[in-house]
Amino acid sequence: MSFRDRFASLRKEKKTVLCVGIDPALPKQRDSNTIPEKYLDVDDENEARLNFCLDIIDVVKDYAVAIKPNQQYIFGFTKRQHRELADSIRQADMLSILDYKLNDISDTVESAIFHISESRYDAITFNPLPGNLREVVQLAHDSARRIRGYELGIIVLTLMSNPEAVTFMKDAKIGRWPLFRFISRQVRDCDADGVVVGATGHVTEKDIKSIRRIVGPDKVFLIPGIGAQKGDVRKVLKAAGENILINVGRDIIYSENPKSKAEVYYTMLASY
Amino acid sequence: MSFRDRFASLRKEKKTVLCVGIDPALPKQRDSNTIPEKYLDVDDENEARLNFCLDIIDVVKDYAVAIKPNQQYIFGFTKRQHRELADSIRQADMLSILDYKLNDISDTVESAIFHISESRYDAITFNPLPGNLREVVQLAHDSARRIRGYELGIIVLTLMSNPEAVTFMKDAKIGRWPLFRFISRQVRDCDADGVVVGATGHVTEKDIKSIRRIVGPDKVFLIPGIGAQKGDVRKVLKAAGENILINVGRDIIYSENPKSKAEVYYTMLASY
Repeated sequence: MSFRDRFASLRKEKKTVLCVGIDPALPKQRDSNTIPEKYLDVDDENEARLNFCLDIIDVVKDYAVAIKPNQQYIFGFTKRQHRELADSIRQADMLSILDYKLNDISDTVESAIFHISESRYDAITFNPLPGNLREVVQLAHDSARRIRGYELGIIVLTLMSNPEAVTFMKDAKIGRWPLFRFISRQVRDCDADGVVVGATGHVTEKDIKSIRRIVGPDKVFLIPGIGAQKGDVRKVLKAAGENILINVGRDIIYSENPKSKAEVYYTMLASY
Repeated sequence: MSFRDRFASLRKEKKTVLCVGIDPALPKQRDSNTIPEKYLDVDDENEARLNFCLDIIDVVKDYAVAIKPNQQYIFGFTKRQHRELADSIRQADMLSILDYKLNDISDTVESAIFHISESRYDAITFNPLPGNLREVVQLAHDSARRIRGYELGIIVLTLMSNPEAVTFMKDAKIGRWPLFRFISRQVRDCDADGVVVGATGHVTEKDIKSIRRIVGPDKVFLIPGIGAQKGDVRKVLKAAGENILINVGRDIIYSENPKSKAEVYYTMLASY
């Protein structure tokens, strides 16, 4: 079963587009938004972070259709720990998207896809800069199916919302195409599974509509960065059409009550 | 001490520009160029790969000034294992460059730099697409110094040699600048530590000269992808000037005798 088929079926079943971003930060790493002290009883920072993630998965499972762990927060996880994370997400009837921002070529990208497939994630994010999207989609679909029986989805960074992305993704042109629209064409032509598109800052409703028009209706839009600004983005989200995942991270996982916060977002997003 | 100062001092001491790329592939992962069977006695694929890396470090240490492990081949290493790798490289008087191709923004990039600094690598590679090089260089220099007493160097993917990079790095333009030259200007302006520049395929002597002219003489050129084509690239390497690292991977680590193969490259590169 392809990533997109599984997404479509779970979305129908769970009736939500909420994706929960799990970014387990250690208390020694920053001052606020860190995993609670109780997890630090175990003398192993990997187990502490993993236990936090597993608890979040358990409490949000009725309200979310996907979980997105970020590689930069689970740096140092063993393959067994990656697997436990991915398997728990799957058992809770959600999609696991490793936010990995892969960008390698030839044998190194093969190695990444080997290890990530063995780790059993459903999809990863991918940075299109080296330009080898076609190679990567093919590998991710074919090798993953061979290794574990189902494809690895590839979700391509297409238009980020950080201010510098204006220069690199909009002002930058290949021929007459702004980079983000050129990337959108590649996503369509290489049959990648989705796009990462910001919904705040410089990203406009028109930008999002143009990406959807190019990539087609079946690609998944992974939209990070709502949360604090949720009211403002309603219009923009509508522009993305169906087949979207709206990621909410720290506003859920570091709240006093992650379960009720997930429910708030579930209700808020019920119209999508 | 900055990464570039340490590079300059070690280069003088070791009289070579050879960087050995260590990419430990497991036999289940592909048919050839894999770690020898003897390492697989231990029942843990991380320990097997780590032991292979440590042996390579030991046998090449008289012939190389840097070691570049690739994240996609050491996927699943714990922070303890990353540290053991980085520390062994340091104890053998070489620089450790984690080929990580980081490309995240805001809090996630902070988290990456936290964990990588704790892992004690001297430098990492960075993909400039999200556009936030200034933020990343500052974090890598300042946070790393705070965490472990010395800076983390940032080496920026500037011009890759894969065929698709022509479209994404040369044909793509920001204003009147081809992307690779725009990135070179950012490397200079943000005080990054070096550039990754291919020396084969579509990359010409003129390209390399123009990058050196823009970034200035003190930036480190990390040049992968010689090996099989070594004869052809002599001219191109000369164009990169001083302060270069020439990476050789599988041609050394998977040869019958890695030590003597490293010596061959050491001798071949003696004139740089």
